[in-house]
Amino acid sequence: MSTPVGDRLRSSVSWTGDAIEIIDQTKLPGTLAVLRLTTVDEATSAIRRLAVRGAPAIGACGGLAMALGLNEAHPATMAEARRTLDELVQRVGATRPTAVNLSWAVRRVRDAAVGGTSISDLRRRALDEALAIIEEDRKACRRIGEFGRQELAGKTTLLTHCNTGRLATLGWGTALGVVYAKAAAGEPIKVYVCESRPLLQGARLTAWELMDAGIDVTLIADSAAASLLAGGTVEAVLVGADRIAANGDTANKIGTFSLAIAAGHAGVPFYVAAPFSTFDPSIATGESSVIEERSADEVRTCGGVAIAPEEVKVWNPAFDLTPHDLITGFITDAGVVQPPFSSRPGEVSKGVGEVVGQ
Amino acid sequence: MSTPVGDRLRSSVSWTGDAIEIIDQTKLPGTLAVLRLTTVDEATSAIRRLAVRGAPAIGACGGLAMALGLNEAHPATMAEARRTLDELVQRVGATRPTAVNLSWAVRRVRDAAVGGTSISDLRRRALDEALAIIEEDRKACRRIGEFGRQELAGKTTLLTHCNTGRLATLGWGTALGVVYAKAAAGEPIKVYVCESRPLLQGARLTAWELMDAGIDVTLIADSAAASLLAGGTVEAVLVGADRIAANGDTANKIGTFSLAIAAGHAGVPFYVAAPFSTFDPSIATGESSVIEERSADEVRTCGGVAIAPEEVKVWNPAFDLTPHDLITGFITDAGVVQPPFSSRPGEVSKGVGEVVGQ
Repeated sequence: MSTPVGDRLRSSVSWTGDAIEIIDQTKLPGTLAVLRLTTVDEATSAIRRLAVRGAPAIGACGGLAMALGLNEAHPATMAEARRTLDELVQRVGATRPTAVNLSWAVRRVRDAAVGGTSISDLRRRALDEALAIIEEDRKACRRIGEFGRQELAGKTTLLTHCNTGRLATLGWGTALGVVYAKAAAGEPIKVYVCESRPLLQGARLTAWELMDAGIDVTLIADSAAASLLAGGTVEAVLVGADRIAANGDTANKIGTFSLAIAAGHAGVPFYVAAPFSTFDPSIATGESSVIEERSADEVRTCGGVAIAPEEVKVWNPAFDLTPHDLITGFITDAGVVQPPFSSRPGEVSKGVGEVVGQ
Repeated sequence: MSTPVGDRLRSSVSWTGDAIEIIDQTKLPGTLAVLRLTTVDEATSAIRRLAVRGAPAIGACGGLAMALGLNEAHPATMAEARRTLDELVQRVGATRPTAVNLSWAVRRVRDAAVGGTSISDLRRRALDEALAIIEEDRKACRRIGEFGRQELAGKTTLLTHCNTGRLATLGWGTALGVVYAKAAAGEPIKVYVCESRPLLQGARLTAWELMDAGIDVTLIADSAAASLLAGGTVEAVLVGADRIAANGDTANKIGTFSLAIAAGHAGVPFYVAAPFSTFDPSIATGESSVIEERSADEVRTCGGVAIAPEEVKVWNPAFDLTPHDLITGFITDAGVVQPPFSSRPGEVSKGVGEVVGQ
């Protein structure tokens, strides 16, 4: 596949041979600052202060921090090296306790390394596993992008929400992966992005990364999306997902549900793009999902400035739930699928989940 | 009617006998600053820099500025006084050329004053007319509030958008007029308000004025409204209007259409509250409406701080259009009505527009 777009773009997290390099997302969109992290403390601090964000990117940074930690500790015996691994799982994993991907990644690195036949083999295995996590995510993004490109053939104007691209993943991203795949294939592509209040990931990150990649992007206030969709300009809405239930109900960044209703009203197809690791068939429907409520100050302020009465009550859900009947299709690394979903990654049941576009 | 709430609240624009007093809306919600305007220049400057905003409030300030101007000019003859009136119509009316209510108010004051039998009679007529404009708007708000209170009897939790209250009008407001009427009648009332990006009138103004009045208010990001509505807490959505076509299609602050779709999806009644002066039966449908696009910097910044790449393209419509079939009813100063509308204020055709709740 020709990848003129992807090849010249810096990844959110990369390994230089002796350090982790990340794009400092707290400096965007004003400055593209690359941080070099050479110690576990530097890595956990970067995760903690959201210099690196997005579940796959956090997981990758945590995995690489395990490799850094093994070097730092200079274990003298195999027992010591294994103890160090366990300590690192706790220390790095605790950096953001609710980030499922982070604890998954550090445990995966530990489990791969712990069977090493020597200290250097154990170190090598840890680093290899961390790099494998990055490479798998990069490939999953490419597959999502390519399946999405085929599904949305001929559609040139898309609307997206939040940030689901290079800054959130180790590759092209999920919903934005489709955008990059279209651009890489030389297809015309124009993207509208909702600013995504309260944390403005659309305005700060998606607008930046698409402009940086030379892709035509237009920013709108979240409240302008319904008008845009009704106007007939947008040919498909494409969003990411945090968790997808067996029946297809999808939890994602607040505002997704609003877009899905507006797209349905306007007759515009609405797609969710996500790796299969996002599907949770153990949950029958989205109704049982607990939606995290975040700090009132995220809404009382904007860009660090107070914009509302200091003491005003706020309802600030981080996510919302889009019912499956508003979703046209799920663009995954295993193809474009439809609910019900009955399996986890690697065990996609084509008999139950209808798998198309492969 | 008992008005414990309304009576102790400061009006957005008032006349002290020799000066205009306004609440400086640029200082809200941080500070409640009352500005005393004693010259035409001070009044036009306040209008220009949005210290006073909201169509009725701007009109009232402009009308009172005509009275100030007649005092300032010290006309020696009737001809000079009439020339001064014409000059003031131009000078004050040009302050915000697109504010229909402002040019309407200054012409109305001129037309009332020009037939004065002496210079002092002419001055008296100008001031009386400006005060009549304020009083009429105050009464229209009360009627809207009371009709809305009856229509929404038993409903205690409402969702609103933008600012349609004391700061935008000379009375209790339109959609917020219903809220104040419920509070004044001692009925339980809880209001959710969308922050209303990009200019944040909900966060800055509505949250402030409801808290100031002791009314239970909760602020949400615009994108959280669909979830809130689906959750079943909100019993009615209540918004204002900028212009209503003969068939009921309604132009209002961007985000209104999105709320109407989400309310429809959730089965929550959606009301537009507006004085009859907002109805324009000369427009058959909303489709012919031209939607004003405003500066990109309103979306690129928030609270004066840059939140997006400096050069990012922006689509920033000030208003949107809600089709009549998403609107449960129109709460007006002449009752709760349904389209089609075939008449202007004072000539409400009950045969055509179904008038209820009077």
